[in-house]
Amino acid sequence: MVKSYSSEDIQNMDHRKRALFINSLSGFKSANLIGTRTEKNVDNLAIFSSVFHLGANPPLLGMISRPDSVHRGTLANIEKVGFYTINHVNKNNYIKAHQTSARYTDSVSEFDACSINKEQNKDFPHAPFVRDSFVKIGMKMVKTVKIELNDTVLIIGEIKYISIDEDIVSPSGYLDIEKLGSVCVSGLDSYHTTKRLSRLSYAKPDKEPSEIGECN
Amino acid sequence: MVKSYSSEDIQNMDHRKRALFINSLSGFKSANLIGTRTEKNVDNLAIFSSVFHLGANPPLLGMISRPDSVHRGTLANIEKVGFYTINHVNKNNYIKAHQTSARYTDSVSEFDACSINKEQNKDFPHAPFVRDSFVKIGMKMVKTVKIELNDTVLIIGEIKYISIDEDIVSPSGYLDIEKLGSVCVSGLDSYHTTKRLSRLSYAKPDKEPSEIGECN
Repeated sequence: MVKSYSSEDIQNMDHRKRALFINSLSGFKSANLIGTRTEKNVDNLAIFSSVFHLGANPPLLGMISRPDSVHRGTLANIEKVGFYTINHVNKNNYIKAHQTSARYTDSVSEFDACSINKEQNKDFPHAPFVRDSFVKIGMKMVKTVKIELNDTVLIIGEIKYISIDEDIVSPSGYLDIEKLGSVCVSGLDSYHTTKRLSRLSYAKPDKEPSEIGECN
Repeated sequence: MVKSYSSEDIQNMDHRKRALFINSLSGFKSANLIGTRTEKNVDNLAIFSSVFHLGANPPLLGMISRPDSVHRGTLANIEKVGFYTINHVNKNNYIKAHQTSARYTDSVSEFDACSINKEQNKDFPHAPFVRDSFVKIGMKMVKTVKIELNDTVLIIGEIKYISIDEDIVSPSGYLDIEKLGSVCVSGLDSYHTTKRLSRLSYAKPDKEPSEIGECN
């Protein structure tokens, strides 16, 4: 049974219900652990479902920091240190990853509190990586954009370092992140693995899309 | 075999390979069809993988417009008319949805060219919906933010209207978009259905996450 909601219906929802409802609407989201370091050398880790592709040349990723305590620490560290890491959440570590959203005090490292193995990398020493993540990205902050409408901040960073299993890099450049068990999120708290329907050829007006072999 | 990539390695990639590679790195992305109308009353439809949650109160969604022809038409229409629709892509229509990324001329409606059924809705008459989409959102443009770094534009809109199957709205507000067959995207061209691992309880420092029943 199809139901319609007006602006007023949304406005009148209980605020917790609205948060879950609206968070589910955009579709599936990426699941990433953001590694940062405080000025006092505490390694911080927080799950974000808002990392998105911004451009390939220069290689840029964006993410949204919300004005609550978990994200505030990450944003403060990024602004002070200038670097951070992005680590894919996978089906083996999503429960521990979710636990990083608890409000630990600033002196506690989520690596310890959530029993997540840390990797220090000499090629990108500015921030900690998640050892058990199969896609690890070293980021340099380029710019922050304050969104006054709701007090959020868009953090834009440039990719400076990538560590990934070579087996899932296809000759074309496509990465089979499904094979690595990377998960996606819906709403605030639902985690999903994926099953490929197909890869489709570059669309042209006079041609129907055809399937691309996974290894291309 | 784990492989590392430096900034230089990324810079030296062939540009097509880099586009696919970098587009795969952020993780899984949402898949949505954006419906707009030109000043000459041509109904435009374009697939975007960059729609993301920006906030629940006010209910805001963001998306990134790239400086290529398909997105340029959508952005121009949104800026002129002020309204647009967001429609989830699902496993039944993802091939037709992908085809909207072909560079049709401005006078051609992708609804016709890609055989996608259109819905005109009297409660949100400003832009066309995709009839076969199970999550339909009517948006009012609030703001555009130019990202000078790579000539992209962040389009911020407020949710003004939602049409959705009531059966997938849980009492808590969570929407089971997996049940509707909504798909996600990896890279530029790979489409995936999902399988829920679990929903997890709100994280607290002194407690392990527990699973939430799907119907809550």
